[in-house]
Amino acid sequence: MISYAQLKGEKKRVAVVGTGQTKFEARSPEKTYYELALEAALTAINDAGITSRDIDSVVYGIYNDLFERQIMPDTYVHDYLGMYGKSGIRVTTGGATGGYAFRAGYSEVASGLSDVTMVIGVEKAQDCYDWAQGKTTPEVIKSIAYSSDMTWEFPLGTSAASSYAILASAHMKKYGTTEEQAALVSVKNHGNAISNPFAQSPMKITVDDVMQSRMISYPFKMLDCSLYTEGAYALILMSEEKTMRMGIKDPVWVMGIGSSNDKSFTGSRTVKDRMGKYGDIADLRNHYESAVQAYNMAGIQDPEKVIDVAELHDAFSFTEIQAYEAMGFCGRGKGGKFIEDGVPLMNGDLPVSPSGGLLGAGHAVGATGVMQIGEVVNQLRNRAGKRQVEIRSGIGLAHSIGGPGSSYCSVSVMGVD
Amino acid sequence: MISYAQLKGEKKRVAVVGTGQTKFEARSPEKTYYELALEAALTAINDAGITSRDIDSVVYGIYNDLFERQIMPDTYVHDYLGMYGKSGIRVTTGGATGGYAFRAGYSEVASGLSDVTMVIGVEKAQDCYDWAQGKTTPEVIKSIAYSSDMTWEFPLGTSAASSYAILASAHMKKYGTTEEQAALVSVKNHGNAISNPFAQSPMKITVDDVMQSRMISYPFKMLDCSLYTEGAYALILMSEEKTMRMGIKDPVWVMGIGSSNDKSFTGSRTVKDRMGKYGDIADLRNHYESAVQAYNMAGIQDPEKVIDVAELHDAFSFTEIQAYEAMGFCGRGKGGKFIEDGVPLMNGDLPVSPSGGLLGAGHAVGATGVMQIGEVVNQLRNRAGKRQVEIRSGIGLAHSIGGPGSSYCSVSVMGVD
Repeated sequence: MISYAQLKGEKKRVAVVGTGQTKFEARSPEKTYYELALEAALTAINDAGITSRDIDSVVYGIYNDLFERQIMPDTYVHDYLGMYGKSGIRVTTGGATGGYAFRAGYSEVASGLSDVTMVIGVEKAQDCYDWAQGKTTPEVIKSIAYSSDMTWEFPLGTSAASSYAILASAHMKKYGTTEEQAALVSVKNHGNAISNPFAQSPMKITVDDVMQSRMISYPFKMLDCSLYTEGAYALILMSEEKTMRMGIKDPVWVMGIGSSNDKSFTGSRTVKDRMGKYGDIADLRNHYESAVQAYNMAGIQDPEKVIDVAELHDAFSFTEIQAYEAMGFCGRGKGGKFIEDGVPLMNGDLPVSPSGGLLGAGHAVGATGVMQIGEVVNQLRNRAGKRQVEIRSGIGLAHSIGGPGSSYCSVSVMGVD
Repeated sequence: MISYAQLKGEKKRVAVVGTGQTKFEARSPEKTYYELALEAALTAINDAGITSRDIDSVVYGIYNDLFERQIMPDTYVHDYLGMYGKSGIRVTTGGATGGYAFRAGYSEVASGLSDVTMVIGVEKAQDCYDWAQGKTTPEVIKSIAYSSDMTWEFPLGTSAASSYAILASAHMKKYGTTEEQAALVSVKNHGNAISNPFAQSPMKITVDDVMQSRMISYPFKMLDCSLYTEGAYALILMSEEKTMRMGIKDPVWVMGIGSSNDKSFTGSRTVKDRMGKYGDIADLRNHYESAVQAYNMAGIQDPEKVIDVAELHDAFSFTEIQAYEAMGFCGRGKGGKFIEDGVPLMNGDLPVSPSGGLLGAGHAVGATGVMQIGEVVNQLRNRAGKRQVEIRSGIGLAHSIGGPGSSYCSVSVMGVD
């Protein structure tokens, strides 16, 4: 893998130079998914100080066809954005769709195929029309259920929550992590969202509120789970050469990208295969692997010392605790203590998910991973408004996961000069 | 856009070094889509002379979720191939899925994120199980119908055939192209398939057979249309540095890639927008644009003189005629005469679709564009067996399209030193 140091030496880095988003909300009945995408795209284009003519290609992060009851939703968005005549690729990798779309967008620019690429995630589902039944009906639950393996898992009734709950239970058993520790993540992220005007679920809550909320899938209670969200987020990526030519003021560089997809069946993640060094079912093995890849590319040895801010994927509160460990922010099994000690709080040494994360800001599937990277970009540019954290090293990290038991994981490390 | 000459000078090219496929057939009831993918992958790995450990990442071309009734089919294929611990990205862009997956695979390697990437297309649908109805039922028609715009087109009953038929009718009206000329494409491609042991529809037929076959959507008769196909095709892509380190004998270099997505509504492709210079609804405007991009990157001025062999997307016979023109093989409106004159025949000056194309070899959607590139690779390596054409310049072209009225188009130009 090429190193960031080499890219920097050759002036061949890739920067994020613009971000834009819609409000994340449970339902946007007055806007089509085209319109959500357009709103985010125009904001990002304005933020970058470019015009849509400067864009060479687009990468779309759109999760699943059933959400829109529309195969190839990207082709209609592409048209609506006025991007005809340019390349448009759709990437879809479950909850990690945004993170992998970013990887594909990075490659588009780093390969030299494009100087400027827009990565845009968009999701909408609640008001899709069921032609068979002749009425409007939500497809969300059905279409997420189709994510589990249709041969072995779907017949057993697995859901997104239950597969992540198994990983959480294993972590509790192996390391003694508690439900109360996980509840602290929920309290933190819903609280952080209060300073994010685009967030879906800003709330001041307590550990007791989480503990007493309705059981969903042990050990997850309602407030441990992110909600379904509609919205869009766009990023403008640009080659270093073009940033110099255009005089971009505060580019945020992609320092490292790592992506590792684990076995699809959580039960087969034993310690006997070649990923065993990263742990077993209690550990998010491919998250460790993705972080190692990203840090190697970025040239980072001590992530816990140099990373100023991170956005971690908290579709479920426990997963953020497991991610502290996998990202190397704390030792293995120490994730629960990490939040008890307050390290990832807004005023802690390594603030995690100032946006509010998926729990607080919302989980608009394809848009989520793009949003997380955008939040890190704005933090590093000191443009995060009321939720700005202190930037010291100028390095941040975004973590995007999805699939059954998080078989997908993509880690992006970003930095400013 | 970076030029092939520059990449060659810097020894930073990307090669295809291995190909592998399953038989393309209407139904593969004894194999799951995992197994089809594995068969193609193992053949490509062996062909490249590498092991699966050499592969850094995979790009999956899988068309639509409803075919498998499986959101994220790629995660299950990734596991089955033993690729856990590596990045896997799924690309989906309608009938052009294979072509755009190849673009994403090229970028993976050219960006330096991977030294070796496998691009694999796989499709299977006929024996999917409908849990709601409790029986096995084909989802093919329903899921393809979901490709048209759900707001404006689906309610009108548009299908893949009817949208391409509109483009063909416009071409007939504008340039005087005849049904008999289109029938010659069908005769050629079904005939070429006789020499392809992996082909679905090898047939010796006549223009009369095509003309007398059942009407599907004017001017398309049954034998003008490709069939539904199941199958898989895999390619191994490698950085130039790694080909030298591994002593790869006959790498086939990616010289140029161009992708242009047109407006999604064929009716809005008037001459008044900025793509008007490439024509109107009778012309495949984004195919012209994609070819120009690919030729510019490759440094090719006279494609009709230097291209030895091409695989053009012939989901419908007329589309191949339109593509002769868009690829610059003949003048605008001269596509019908081009085949009447025999130029694209196996013994002509520019043989087109020696594999049999989609009409003869089959259209396994996500796998199709990958197959077309693989065929060009094997022709340029002089490994195409009974259907080998004469290689002079050592340059070939593959053309992958999809979407309503071919809103997607990706052109790949390949070459040997």
